[in-house]
Amino acid sequence: MGKYGTLEDRVHCSFLMNKVMTAEDTIGMFKNGMNLGWSGFTPAGYPKAVPIALAEHVEKNNLQGKLRFNLFIGASVGAETEDRWAQNDMIDRRWPYQTGRNIAKAINEGRIRMGDKHLSLFAQDLAYGYYTKDSKSGKLDLAIIEVSGITEDGCLIPSASVGVIPEIIQTCDKIILEVNTAMPSFEGMHDVMVLHAPPHREIIGITKADSRIGSTFVPCDPSKIVAIVESDYTDKGRELAGADEGSIAIADSLLNFFADEVKAHRLPENLLPLQSGVGSIANAVVSGLAKGPFFNLSVYTEVLQDGMLDLFDSGRLNCASSCSLSLSETVGMPRFLANRDFYQDKIVLRPLSISNNPEVARRLGVIAMNTPIEIDMYGHANSTLVGGTRIVNGIGGSGDFLRSGFLKIMHTPSVRPTKTDPTGISCIVPHAQHIDHTEHDLDIVVTEQGLADLRGLAPRDRARTIINNCAHPDYKEQMMDYFLMAEKDCLARGVGHEPQLWDRVFKMQLNLAKNGTMKVKNWDVKMDLCE
Amino acid sequence: MGKYGTLEDRVHCSFLMNKVMTAEDTIGMFKNGMNLGWSGFTPAGYPKAVPIALAEHVEKNNLQGKLRFNLFIGASVGAETEDRWAQNDMIDRRWPYQTGRNIAKAINEGRIRMGDKHLSLFAQDLAYGYYTKDSKSGKLDLAIIEVSGITEDGCLIPSASVGVIPEIIQTCDKIILEVNTAMPSFEGMHDVMVLHAPPHREIIGITKADSRIGSTFVPCDPSKIVAIVESDYTDKGRELAGADEGSIAIADSLLNFFADEVKAHRLPENLLPLQSGVGSIANAVVSGLAKGPFFNLSVYTEVLQDGMLDLFDSGRLNCASSCSLSLSETVGMPRFLANRDFYQDKIVLRPLSISNNPEVARRLGVIAMNTPIEIDMYGHANSTLVGGTRIVNGIGGSGDFLRSGFLKIMHTPSVRPTKTDPTGISCIVPHAQHIDHTEHDLDIVVTEQGLADLRGLAPRDRARTIINNCAHPDYKEQMMDYFLMAEKDCLARGVGHEPQLWDRVFKMQLNLAKNGTMKVKNWDVKMDLCE
Repeated sequence: MGKYGTLEDRVHCSFLMNKVMTAEDTIGMFKNGMNLGWSGFTPAGYPKAVPIALAEHVEKNNLQGKLRFNLFIGASVGAETEDRWAQNDMIDRRWPYQTGRNIAKAINEGRIRMGDKHLSLFAQDLAYGYYTKDSKSGKLDLAIIEVSGITEDGCLIPSASVGVIPEIIQTCDKIILEVNTAMPSFEGMHDVMVLHAPPHREIIGITKADSRIGSTFVPCDPSKIVAIVESDYTDKGRELAGADEGSIAIADSLLNFFADEVKAHRLPENLLPLQSGVGSIANAVVSGLAKGPFFNLSVYTEVLQDGMLDLFDSGRLNCASSCSLSLSETVGMPRFLANRDFYQDKIVLRPLSISNNPEVARRLGVIAMNTPIEIDMYGHANSTLVGGTRIVNGIGGSGDFLRSGFLKIMHTPSVRPTKTDPTGISCIVPHAQHIDHTEHDLDIVVTEQGLADLRGLAPRDRARTIINNCAHPDYKEQMMDYFLMAEKDCLARGVGHEPQLWDRVFKMQLNLAKNGTMKVKNWDVKMDLCE
Repeated sequence: MGKYGTLEDRVHCSFLMNKVMTAEDTIGMFKNGMNLGWSGFTPAGYPKAVPIALAEHVEKNNLQGKLRFNLFIGASVGAETEDRWAQNDMIDRRWPYQTGRNIAKAINEGRIRMGDKHLSLFAQDLAYGYYTKDSKSGKLDLAIIEVSGITEDGCLIPSASVGVIPEIIQTCDKIILEVNTAMPSFEGMHDVMVLHAPPHREIIGITKADSRIGSTFVPCDPSKIVAIVESDYTDKGRELAGADEGSIAIADSLLNFFADEVKAHRLPENLLPLQSGVGSIANAVVSGLAKGPFFNLSVYTEVLQDGMLDLFDSGRLNCASSCSLSLSETVGMPRFLANRDFYQDKIVLRPLSISNNPEVARRLGVIAMNTPIEIDMYGHANSTLVGGTRIVNGIGGSGDFLRSGFLKIMHTPSVRPTKTDPTGISCIVPHAQHIDHTEHDLDIVVTEQGLADLRGLAPRDRARTIINNCAHPDYKEQMMDYFLMAEKDCLARGVGHEPQLWDRVFKMQLNLAKNGTMKVKNWDVKMDLCE
């Protein structure tokens, strides 16, 4: 029995009670090389009891490297599960997003093979069998799904996220359920529609952020359930850092921009459904909105974090749709529970395939806001690879929303510090070292220096606007020097739609790697690579 | 009176007949600096009489550079209109796609400011007012729309394409209509649904390629019509080149791949709706399908070219949805007209905002196939800029379909010739010089060397597969040398999720520019850019 009741309180399907066992009892079901599907999304609603028991089993029996799995999970999960698995060399492949020091290290050292995919595509590709096509069954071998409860006929009531539970069930015949009694039941918050593969794919009939189009549970054939484990672990939601000065300046710029768009009748007075990424700037935007002039707001996004509670409390937010309720364990979740009735009927939790679906994002016209690692002067953004080769987390849902939004916004500090130079990294560069979002997708770039409205601008006009409005003063001249030099050279040769000088295009990034700063002495090239 | 009847046969709205005038009569309506919207799509259904009259006016009166316009057109139009305008310095800005020697030259020399946008986004952004936000009215100043006819209440029956006619009408108060009597009326072939801006955007209820969800005309307030001009010009549709040996090898690979997917139950026996780009390879794929083992096929694409008639004639294609009917003037169109009853009820022509809408592409699960300029070993593709700076045509709809498809396929020859080396350009490179499609989007790469199935592969596995299966023998070793060197270096430094060496990443492209071949002597770097 957990803090929030007994297993019997949650499992309303009596014929499944003979599947109840401990987490340790399930260990024998796991074989080296299996394809595993987990519930969970950016860390909420992920299985904990079984993964932790398995990690302990490996540690106790020195099975590191001998029990390795391919992990398919909607997004990241708590470090106590996947990151501990990474530390124990229990992961071969991992799709499509992760967070954790050990797992990132293992990926960047080549010990874990990670695939980084738009989350909405991951969900459907998992169901299509793209990730399991080379296995004998063509299916996932085993799934671990955390639930709040089980209905009378064996259907699943998810916990704090829905993630890819529907797709896992479609493509897996053996399911371990973790019934979490350490957290309250989230029954009633979900809206589940299971999409079928084309040519039978359904219309997703969402026309407002809080439209309900499905059921509050995930249909499941009970014969697939091979174990029911009671879980006494809580989600390890992270607390957010407070907003810094730069983030507040960005949020102010954005709110002013929204006000101007409303005045020009390009946005309605209550804006359009907001999608906002994770991090300090997103936080500042939400805080700004909580004190701002816009009412009757709605949110259509993938993760709800603590800041959203402020926006609800301000009386300005009517409703929010998300894939997960990722409140912090010590602050957000207790606050949510203390006022649950107020919040609950304003929140809809959806499967990843719906929360991130471009069909819905485009129809609703979301205002998509995300933070890249770097962005270039033509509007290409790197969201995933520091230095162009080292993965941080993954693209997540940024592409799902940015590509389909009504307004496609990227916000970033103009600079970041290095060990030796407080403005050693310019987030505005001549050419991004990795491109996750293209010039064809972005409308607006904002830094604490200002806002660049790229709508209707040709590439060379875009470059001038981004450098002038968004680059840090330490880099403005340097960037403009490069751009003018490239422009002059390429136009003269009649190849200047989007000018670049390929022998020095990455000089700022190379200088950073060598000298700890992107401030270059000059733009000279003292060599010829192709003698 | 044209070859296909009189103006009276086409204009069923008698109260508009007092707006009839000659193309020359409209010249006074055009003022320097205006924002113009044109009908037309990849060249079909574009206005001809008025643009040609205006070009003649400029030529006769030496007004080159004094009468310049911003042109917003669904995609490219015939060279006799926009390219002649470019030659006469009549274009300031041009969105979102173009073809023509003079216009491309002017863009790459900086005389025309072109913006290159996903076609589906262009359509909606035009209606949102993003391109006209800095003008006084916030709207297009004048539109020229070719129609087959006008209904009794003033609604427009498009000609061989729908393009962005609905969006132009939403955002323009003065419309010149060209009624084309030199070509037959295309009445009945269109299916028009006008999308409204969020939060009032409608569900697009298409569930099959040939679903009809709208009207056969475009609603239009007749008071907006300022002129009706009879046009005696025909669309200049281009004839396609025959398929070469390499293209046929690519088509064979793809057809075998489809057969395997059907066998694995990942594709139905009649495949899924096909989207196919333009060019020799697309042509070969269509020819291959016309002799292949798949029946009851459907097509959901943006351009229907001559090859599609073969596929219809083969009895294998049930229906096709497109934005335009771009048949060649001398071969395809006569063939279509000779057997019009057979073809017409199998073809639906839609507005660009519907034909290219990701909502529909994803629901139907299109098989998206397009040809890039180059593709890199991790699966990033350059579709727009040769040498990373010189625009060819634009991204077109490739992103609309590739990002939302069921299978996302890129096909390209493995090499192209230069003046001095028949295999001087490798289309497989370490890093694409411009990225229009990211690694997160592609499933399959095919060259005449073979097919790389990237589904479920992490970046380093992808690189090995693409180099081994798709690179030309002249480049296989060179590419693998680079990759292994980059992999060793980056993994050792713990930054190897996607290995690259930034000081020599573009060495193949730099060598091409300098020595006319991508074959490099070695991978050395004889310099330090950042001393």
